Amino acid sequence: MTTPAYLTQHQNRFLEELMDWLRIPSVSADPKFHGDVLRAADFLKARLEEAGAANVELCSTAGNPIVYGEYFVGPDRPTVLVYGHYDVQPADPYELWNSPPFEPVIQDGNIYARGACDDKGQVYMHVKALEMMLRDGGAGVPCNLKFMFEGEEEVGSDNLGIFVKANQEKLKADVILISDTGILANDVPSIEVGLRGLSYHEVEVTGPNRDLHSGLYGGAVLNPINALCDMISSLHDADCHITIPGFYDNVAELSPAERAELAQAPFSEADFKQSIGLPAAVGEKGFTTPERTSIRPTLDVNGIWGGYIGEGAKTVIPGKAFAKISMRLVPHQTSDEITALFQKHFASIAPAGVTVQVRPHHGGEPVVTPTDSAAYRAAAKALTTTFGKAPVPTRGGGSIPIVAMFKSELGLDSVLLGFGLDSDAIHSPNEHFGVFNFLKGIETIPEFYKEYAAAR
Amino acid sequence: MTTPAYLTQHQNRFLEELMDWLRIPSVSADPKFHGDVLRAADFLKARLEEAGAANVELCSTAGNPIVYGEYFVGPDRPTVLVYGHYDVQPADPYELWNSPPFEPVIQDGNIYARGACDDKGQVYMHVKALEMMLRDGGAGVPCNLKFMFEGEEEVGSDNLGIFVKANQEKLKADVILISDTGILANDVPSIEVGLRGLSYHEVEVTGPNRDLHSGLYGGAVLNPINALCDMISSLHDADCHITIPGFYDNVAELSPAERAELAQAPFSEADFKQSIGLPAAVGEKGFTTPERTSIRPTLDVNGIWGGYIGEGAKTVIPGKAFAKISMRLVPHQTSDEITALFQKHFASIAPAGVTVQVRPHHGGEPVVTPTDSAAYRAAAKALTTTFGKAPVPTRGGGSIPIVAMFKSELGLDSVLLGFGLDSDAIHSPNEHFGVFNFLKGIETIPEFYKEYAAAR
Repeated sequence: MTTPAYLTQHQNRFLEELMDWLRIPSVSADPKFHGDVLRAADFLKARLEEAGAANVELCSTAGNPIVYGEYFVGPDRPTVLVYGHYDVQPADPYELWNSPPFEPVIQDGNIYARGACDDKGQVYMHVKALEMMLRDGGAGVPCNLKFMFEGEEEVGSDNLGIFVKANQEKLKADVILISDTGILANDVPSIEVGLRGLSYHEVEVTGPNRDLHSGLYGGAVLNPINALCDMISSLHDADCHITIPGFYDNVAELSPAERAELAQAPFSEADFKQSIGLPAAVGEKGFTTPERTSIRPTLDVNGIWGGYIGEGAKTVIPGKAFAKISMRLVPHQTSDEITALFQKHFASIAPAGVTVQVRPHHGGEPVVTPTDSAAYRAAAKALTTTFGKAPVPTRGGGSIPIVAMFKSELGLDSVLLGFGLDSDAIHSPNEHFGVFNFLKGIETIPEFYKEYAAAR
Repeated sequence: MTTPAYLTQHQNRFLEELMDWLRIPSVSADPKFHGDVLRAADFLKARLEEAGAANVELCSTAGNPIVYGEYFVGPDRPTVLVYGHYDVQPADPYELWNSPPFEPVIQDGNIYARGACDDKGQVYMHVKALEMMLRDGGAGVPCNLKFMFEGEEEVGSDNLGIFVKANQEKLKADVILISDTGILANDVPSIEVGLRGLSYHEVEVTGPNRDLHSGLYGGAVLNPINALCDMISSLHDADCHITIPGFYDNVAELSPAERAELAQAPFSEADFKQSIGLPAAVGEKGFTTPERTSIRPTLDVNGIWGGYIGEGAKTVIPGKAFAKISMRLVPHQTSDEITALFQKHFASIAPAGVTVQVRPHHGGEPVVTPTDSAAYRAAAKALTTTFGKAPVPTRGGGSIPIVAMFKSELGLDSVLLGFGLDSDAIHSPNEHFGVFNFLKGIETIPEFYKEYAAAR
């Protein structure tokens, strides 16, 4: 397919606008950015109105507002509810960014900024796709559209859940469209059909009632850092199996046929290792690398701290040590079930001499989306048109907790039409999004609407 | 003994002066305090001159200056070289201090400030003892005195070692007197006759070449934090023995008689546990709590960090994880030997998928000081006079690396006439020093000189 003239003509402006938005540090996890989160919502509301959406509003919640808008064509047309999020992950550690995370730059064909790919860049594709369909020479909009962009995806979407429950009529639709995932490569289009769930905890190990001098007390007191390391170490066995009792009870084991099908997706172990600079891929015994990151649950320490972490040496036995520990879940594990198992188990392995507190953060449910639906077929056709190649279905390792919630609350399936790449470094320093991918998204979204409207 | 009139009369001024000095944050480990370290040296030089010392100078080194001064009485008198340090430990974590660490306050009979006990408060006892001996009604100084106060004790005393080597003639003396330790209790005077050595390292575990998203990569990559926890956990066995091969090879095992003698020192396990708020004392199997903190070597993690440690949740597999790990050593282990063993062992236990760097910080040698010397007997008599009770010899768990160096470079034994308490929280938030202890030190030091001069 030839790139639409409007897109070619306006792409520089589209990029400039996106970079203006990326300059607003809409970090939802850290209260000090609260004002910026609100500014990012205002920015999105204004751009959505300019693009041609109607009834655009900021729907207030107990937390960050939801940006909502509509474009109504007619009662005979299907309705697509577009979901995305305008909040971003924290940008720490700042010193590892080659350019400041909130001063976007375009280099080597990529937009570098926190949120460039996850998910402001992908949300903005939808805004610009709408503009393109409605302007001179545009094809018009073939479906009814509802836009719902939240500001708390990176902190668990609790308030979106409440909003959805309370607004079932307003949100009535035929399918959910989400661009918050990726494709395998720019010449290997793909659609994610599975996502892992999440159970995320902060643990606090308390030993003595204050920091102690390691000379005066060392040897006679269980050091909370050493204890925490022991406890964390015990969570995996030598085969990288997770040792929490009952952890695997509800894991859906795939049949050999299902595993063989997944193994069709192109994957190079050598490229994988090279891309992350590692000599070895390490993981659960009995499973391949793609399986380990998709159909198997995991446990990772996402952060750890305790004692003296400044420059130089301090001979201290700290009173406390902390870690953030999360588990990725697969069907048919549930976040509540695994959260309860983790809390119970982690408390039970605390050795004498320390006490343990486990504070659950947010969770999310694993999902598998259907590949035999009209929406999936429309997405596959749209990608085939714009990439010149049929997409492959993949099971992703990330979590979009809201997908399971949409199914349970609204009864709607989601189609995951994302344009990122695994190498985009989302949640990491130097997050980026390909200009190619951004523009390809704007080009593909109208094709999806066209195919979906035609199929209904 | 009755408190000298001069001390009673001037004690408030002495305390005010000390608090002025404690307001200068002379943290040697952190370059941002470098100017303050120099100000603290200037302050000490001025006070030492005012007290009556001669030839007071700042001896420059490659690092922080050494404050040196003398008081010469006559060639027939013995010479005491007084050593102490004016640098202090970092005050982190600041938020756990009840009052700011560099804004000293006196509360419940204690001076609260970083360095109050370790070691500015104890150095200042020597300055004020000199003043007291020399002023109206003072007994005069019965020994030749040399004062040498360094500014790098908390970072390994490397430059003091060079200074001592280069100034053997200038530093000629009969004994070293150090007040940088403690007594068992205010009604149980004691003298430390053993100190543990130190081997201190910073370790860096590197996994992937950047932070990764734990959803996209989790399960297929060895997480450096998990790997670091495994490695740390493996450094002790279930009996709290250290697993580094060869670690215990040179440990001097005490005879049952020697252990029985040490067990004479009053110790209450219940009080120990209560003082640190712990239900259990945990340590090496087969040894008592006092033995674990004195005659046995230890390994503690003094700090650990990696990944996301801010507020909220971030689903990251970090590229690196770090820890500060130190070992307390006992005779006849040496710092160099244990440093080499640790480096080799820690690198050897790195699992496939991570690489490890071990950077040694400073070390120090364990020492045992003689109890049959004129200096030890003089110290014991001085304490008996001022406390009304003979002191008990104890083996301390801390390290003053310089003591072994004095022995090897100057051929001199040290006597450890310290006045702190274990509960003074040195190296911890809310460090303090009893006003009683500060004044008792000023009272005892002249008694030591008197007894030492008389015995020679």
